[in-house]
Amino acid sequence: MPQNKQIVLDNRPQGEATVGNFKLVQTDTPALQDGQVLVQHHYLSLDPYMRGRMNDGKSYAQPQPLGQVMIGGTVGEVVESRHPRYAVGDKVVGMGGWQQYSVVDATTPGTMRKVDTTQVPLSHYLGAVGMPGVTAWYGLVKIINPKAGETVVVSAATGAVGSAYAAVAKARGCRVVGIAGGPDKCAYAVNELGFDVCLDYKVHTDVKSLSQALKEACPDGIDGYFENVGGYILDAVLLRTNAFARIAVCGMIAGYDGKPMPLSNPALILINRLKVQGFIVGEHMEVWPEALAELGGLVASGKLRPRESVAQGLEAAPEAFLGLLKGKNFGKQLVKLI
Amino acid sequence: MPQNKQIVLDNRPQGEATVGNFKLVQTDTPALQDGQVLVQHHYLSLDPYMRGRMNDGKSYAQPQPLGQVMIGGTVGEVVESRHPRYAVGDKVVGMGGWQQYSVVDATTPGTMRKVDTTQVPLSHYLGAVGMPGVTAWYGLVKIINPKAGETVVVSAATGAVGSAYAAVAKARGCRVVGIAGGPDKCAYAVNELGFDVCLDYKVHTDVKSLSQALKEACPDGIDGYFENVGGYILDAVLLRTNAFARIAVCGMIAGYDGKPMPLSNPALILINRLKVQGFIVGEHMEVWPEALAELGGLVASGKLRPRESVAQGLEAAPEAFLGLLKGKNFGKQLVKLI
Repeated sequence: MPQNKQIVLDNRPQGEATVGNFKLVQTDTPALQDGQVLVQHHYLSLDPYMRGRMNDGKSYAQPQPLGQVMIGGTVGEVVESRHPRYAVGDKVVGMGGWQQYSVVDATTPGTMRKVDTTQVPLSHYLGAVGMPGVTAWYGLVKIINPKAGETVVVSAATGAVGSAYAAVAKARGCRVVGIAGGPDKCAYAVNELGFDVCLDYKVHTDVKSLSQALKEACPDGIDGYFENVGGYILDAVLLRTNAFARIAVCGMIAGYDGKPMPLSNPALILINRLKVQGFIVGEHMEVWPEALAELGGLVASGKLRPRESVAQGLEAAPEAFLGLLKGKNFGKQLVKLI
Repeated sequence: MPQNKQIVLDNRPQGEATVGNFKLVQTDTPALQDGQVLVQHHYLSLDPYMRGRMNDGKSYAQPQPLGQVMIGGTVGEVVESRHPRYAVGDKVVGMGGWQQYSVVDATTPGTMRKVDTTQVPLSHYLGAVGMPGVTAWYGLVKIINPKAGETVVVSAATGAVGSAYAAVAKARGCRVVGIAGGPDKCAYAVNELGFDVCLDYKVHTDVKSLSQALKEACPDGIDGYFENVGGYILDAVLLRTNAFARIAVCGMIAGYDGKPMPLSNPALILINRLKVQGFIVGEHMEVWPEALAELGGLVASGKLRPRESVAQGLEAAPEAFLGLLKGKNFGKQLVKLI
């Protein structure tokens, strides 16, 4: 039985999250029972939703329990199997958590699925062809539902969700405008991800400046917006919405530390007859096959070339996660565990 | 040609609207041309949307032009006709404005329609069986779309929109909770309009108090909300929404004077996966026949018994309108012009 390093939530953040909220522990992996599979994780996914789980109190998901392995998506390889559908060497994606190995009960539907790495690199099943990609797809296709020629905007443009959003929106003939932090990210968004324009929120640091920049970047106004951030960025976008624009609300990373983050002018919802809709992609499993098929095709054809930030080793996960919350990552944030 | 008194917008409000923004003028009604009809107005409708039109600047509608007759819905009687479809004595509803008579070009579709007053009193075509009723119907049926047993809430509960909302929601088997100002209105909402509970915002004057009262009034949470008011009432309702609740945004009367009116916690849109949608009923003419048929049936059967506040004479219109904006009316606000 291999040794297994794990990271558990040791205590809850008071305001901003810190490395002191996490603790590294070491255990033995248990012997397998019938129907179980031992997976060695190659990559761990780090995602903003995890910050919400670290808080106690009401949210859409149960809080992460203290003393237990942090929740997280993983890809890896079957190294031992007592289930007939899985063989040693199979590549799998699942919710293995912040640890090197996981024991999966393969008889429970939906806990794990095999993936094909001939056209799509294994790590992309945690990003463009995984939960973040489907998140972008759902918000764009099911909530914004843009027509060709419409202008759609996304914040956190170079992240895993933003990258997929741009590719799916371009495939539908939209003008796509991103918002990201810093000249390198903005250049990458335009040169590599297919954004028509990308605005730097580190240059446009208030509502007035950003809304003016959006006016120039979106000469026909904004028809759809995918919200990952919240705060003044949402205020600025709302000022540029066209009548009947649709806002998909997926994340409000700016508010995860508990700071109040009001919406300045909700009357715009009425004035522009907006639809503002929150969603969690895990509640819409029925769209995953269609979404994954489109996203896989975009990656295989080279139309979606997502970038990855890879931290090395489980011990690096807390620091990399805190960096993600501050936008220090560039592309999908992963931790390489082998 | 009869003399015609009119009220025009003389100047725009600086902050709160005042009687000084209006001016009474007197003219002759012009001679009719072919296809035109002269209508004597019996009632003028006063509605909150008019306040928005008094401002200059971007809104969903053109600003009311200075020096022209204030826009407004009217019911009346044809007193002279040069159009074959209209006869002297016909009862009609239209947008005649704040004046005693209007000359209507009856060849233009949608400017005026004949109504039947055998089962529905003429004045109700400005309220329950008119634009306010259809507004309530659209928000409830097309945006909130409640299932039997769900809890739906409305602010300005005893107004023209709120009254119709209660009747249409009860017909669908919902629990209906109102919010209104003062014990008389709240008692009336429960005793006459069919609300299960009505909360007094003059007792619950902040978010904490109102959200606690809503918790008690809505033990199964809130599934749908129809927003007429905005401000802290919206904040309090959002705190009590269930997952997948729908918010129809029809008015934000609290913000019409230009005071900033932020939404305190938009993260609830994500946490509770809300749909928040603004609408203007005039953009959905396709639903009017179905809505008016249901509303007329509810009035004719006595299930919807709307109350009216009637000011006497055109000269009383500005004062009555300003009272409406402060919630001084009790039921649909009309001005009787004959």
